Amino acid sequence: MALLTPKAQSFHLSSSPLLHPRSPRRNFDTTIAFPSRNPSRFSNPLYHSNALASSLPVPARTMSSASRIVRSSLIEPDGGEVVDLVVPEGERAARRVEAAALPAVRISQVDLEWVHVLSEGWASPLRGFMREDEYLQSLHFNSLRLADGSVVNMSLPIVLAIDQKDKEAIGDSPDVTLVGPSGNLVAILRRIQIYNHNKEERIARTWGTTAPGLPYVEEVITPAGNWLIGGDIEVLEPIKYSDGLDNYRLSPVALRKEFDKREADAVFAFQLRNPVHNGHALLMNDTRRRLLEMGYKNPILLLHPLGGFTKADDVPLSVRMEQHSKVLEDGILDPETTVVAIFPSPMHYAGPTEVQWHAKARINAGANFYIVGRDPAGMSHPTEKRDLYDPDHGKKVLSMAPGLEKLNILPFRVAAYDTVAKKMAFFDPSRGKDFLFISGTKMRTYARTGENPPDGFMCPGGWKVLVDYYNSLQTEETDKKSAVAAV
Amino acid sequence: MALLTPKAQSFHLSSSPLLHPRSPRRNFDTTIAFPSRNPSRFSNPLYHSNALASSLPVPARTMSSASRIVRSSLIEPDGGEVVDLVVPEGERAARRVEAAALPAVRISQVDLEWVHVLSEGWASPLRGFMREDEYLQSLHFNSLRLADGSVVNMSLPIVLAIDQKDKEAIGDSPDVTLVGPSGNLVAILRRIQIYNHNKEERIARTWGTTAPGLPYVEEVITPAGNWLIGGDIEVLEPIKYSDGLDNYRLSPVALRKEFDKREADAVFAFQLRNPVHNGHALLMNDTRRRLLEMGYKNPILLLHPLGGFTKADDVPLSVRMEQHSKVLEDGILDPETTVVAIFPSPMHYAGPTEVQWHAKARINAGANFYIVGRDPAGMSHPTEKRDLYDPDHGKKVLSMAPGLEKLNILPFRVAAYDTVAKKMAFFDPSRGKDFLFISGTKMRTYARTGENPPDGFMCPGGWKVLVDYYNSLQTEETDKKSAVAAV
Repeated sequence: MALLTPKAQSFHLSSSPLLHPRSPRRNFDTTIAFPSRNPSRFSNPLYHSNALASSLPVPARTMSSASRIVRSSLIEPDGGEVVDLVVPEGERAARRVEAAALPAVRISQVDLEWVHVLSEGWASPLRGFMREDEYLQSLHFNSLRLADGSVVNMSLPIVLAIDQKDKEAIGDSPDVTLVGPSGNLVAILRRIQIYNHNKEERIARTWGTTAPGLPYVEEVITPAGNWLIGGDIEVLEPIKYSDGLDNYRLSPVALRKEFDKREADAVFAFQLRNPVHNGHALLMNDTRRRLLEMGYKNPILLLHPLGGFTKADDVPLSVRMEQHSKVLEDGILDPETTVVAIFPSPMHYAGPTEVQWHAKARINAGANFYIVGRDPAGMSHPTEKRDLYDPDHGKKVLSMAPGLEKLNILPFRVAAYDTVAKKMAFFDPSRGKDFLFISGTKMRTYARTGENPPDGFMCPGGWKVLVDYYNSLQTEETDKKSAVAAV
Repeated sequence: MALLTPKAQSFHLSSSPLLHPRSPRRNFDTTIAFPSRNPSRFSNPLYHSNALASSLPVPARTMSSASRIVRSSLIEPDGGEVVDLVVPEGERAARRVEAAALPAVRISQVDLEWVHVLSEGWASPLRGFMREDEYLQSLHFNSLRLADGSVVNMSLPIVLAIDQKDKEAIGDSPDVTLVGPSGNLVAILRRIQIYNHNKEERIARTWGTTAPGLPYVEEVITPAGNWLIGGDIEVLEPIKYSDGLDNYRLSPVALRKEFDKREADAVFAFQLRNPVHNGHALLMNDTRRRLLEMGYKNPILLLHPLGGFTKADDVPLSVRMEQHSKVLEDGILDPETTVVAIFPSPMHYAGPTEVQWHAKARINAGANFYIVGRDPAGMSHPTEKRDLYDPDHGKKVLSMAPGLEKLNILPFRVAAYDTVAKKMAFFDPSRGKDFLFISGTKMRTYARTGENPPDGFMCPGGWKVLVDYYNSLQTEETDKKSAVAAV
């Protein structure tokens, strides 16, 4: 299967820089609920939805020449600056010598993904794995209060678990070295604090259930140790995966630079972990049209697939990246106004709790608009026949979340296949029977069985990527079975 | 068993107005961690503990003549004023006629306790049972954001459950009438909103566990309906219990008046649901001493036993009130500087989540200092051999809780019986073996078996109340058995 081969330092998939065709799909009666600029809409004194930034579009580059702290003109990062926790190049050799002499803690692949997230400042102003004060605030309040009294959002505990043996080996050392899954020295954790890892409480408060079968719980938390270790991290060198996709792993600082370079006066982020179908595209294009109508001159889309841990039946990152590339090549999205990059976070599937993290991290990357769909970061209840979360709670919780007041939340209703118009459209309940819902499971079944989805569901190039992927899986499966039979 | 017979409008137990004896117990090396007035103590930029109110003591009564809104000079109620949701006397007859014609929803005893709590403004600025926006904010953020952008604490969902039959009977009516357990009309609920009662999620996010055996869950949530109904309440007349204790059920407004009458310049609240032993008294007296040292002239203790739902093996309210009365009669606490009143809330036993509610409600009653102990609102894990919550989490979470910044949190370490000094003292880990921990269970066993606790554990008058109560239980038990045997 062909991997993407992006050019070094290329910030978007530029292989097919077609302008977006003026297709009729942009003329739908959209159902995106745009926030009004009129503050008088707040009628309930106990409910204050996150409002539009009061300012008109600010000219880009206002601050692009200002000092070494990169700040997009669009939105202030949480805590005022994007933290960078990678040791400066000139100091790495010395730091590595120090690291080699400290007590070592072996970390997992998912832990490494969190080191990556922290190191680039996605979780700014967090400077490392949470100590207990931060953990408790995250767990109970989904936010952290800073020394100046301001509040930043922080809905997922970003914590590192260790076991009893690790704890004993660390003893009284104030610092430890984190060692990656392949044995390499990754980072120093400074001024550590070790505290109890109450898994049951963490799971209950993060997911709102303790039912068995939550992917992150089963694969990450259950096998982990019963202690958490917090501290400030100093990462010995930038985290790389060498999978051909590292050039798409743009840090928040790099993204802010790119938005400034493009002279963006609005950045709208779209988080996804699935292939892009034409319903998604409809929404993203419609959002841009609306932003133009509001007076923005150059809104840029951040198409931001999640690159860390996902559950086994999700489509792998490399396949998704290739699919996204085809969507741009086929002109469904406009490469001129789209930046495709990888969001390095692991996935919790924690619905309303997690969507806040997804939005908060994009603030740090310079996005001032965030698109939120039906049941973001949701999944089926692991043991009951229902959605784990009320599909509307994600956008409701997001719109009320502490620390996200400066972000413009753009909720949208679900898109489905309109069998009359023969294209993806926002679902219209007044003629519900005309619509066909194609779930992720259904889409994968189509691709696996070689059946074509209805015309207009996805661009042909993108669809072919999925079909090829599932074919390769089946070949692998058959090969494995043959190998077993041959033994 | 003798009940208390308080005088009408008596705001404290005045039968024994002894001044506090200058006993040696006040000379302990205390372990109360008083907040410093120096803001430079905040060294961790991600942790900002709730600070002391910056002002020096303000003369009491500053505002006592100001308008009809009662505001103690001590601390601003949440949202600026204490709401009063009882229909004015002159309008009650008409409102009752209206109520009789609306769809009726039958509520339970615990629901009625919540109506009481809401009606007097303990949950200010909440004006009724939560609608979904408030419920979600409470569940996810333990706080509510008001229209002016300010934040108030609200850690427990105050919600009313109804079942499918109720929902159908309500139909499209915008208002309903709440009917009490005895069939009386209690309140009108206006501009209602009905939404899904996801019990599993509510329980997991409130208690941090879904293990079976949580008292409030088993007795209140599990038997309740699968819908929640929110709306503004108009209570048809003040809630009374006619148990001889109604005069101790002082509203937040009445308490503020009493503090002003006493010219309090500091009010420190002590929440409890257990008999007062000398360890508690040590702490309360020591707190007053420290407040005097800080420059306050007249700190008043609000001894504030919880009066709503408690678990079956807790000591009943009437017995506790009688015990508290003896503690004041015996001079263990000083009636001149103590107000005893009943906090009408039901108990969740939800540890760090619930302690915020306990503190927030006392802000509304005028308390600007809140004493928090080991494992507040905690209990044993219902299915595992451990505390449900880390005993330190309550005070940590409380000190960081959104909306409680204006409250001074006074954490203290556990008191135990010092077998050398032969009195209750703060536990000194350097000579741990000298201390005897007398848990609630142990105390009840002593009282039940007629064994005396060590001298100095509790004042003799208070202890006798407990012994008499457990004797009466055993007599009842024996009578029941005899009755059964006789059949």
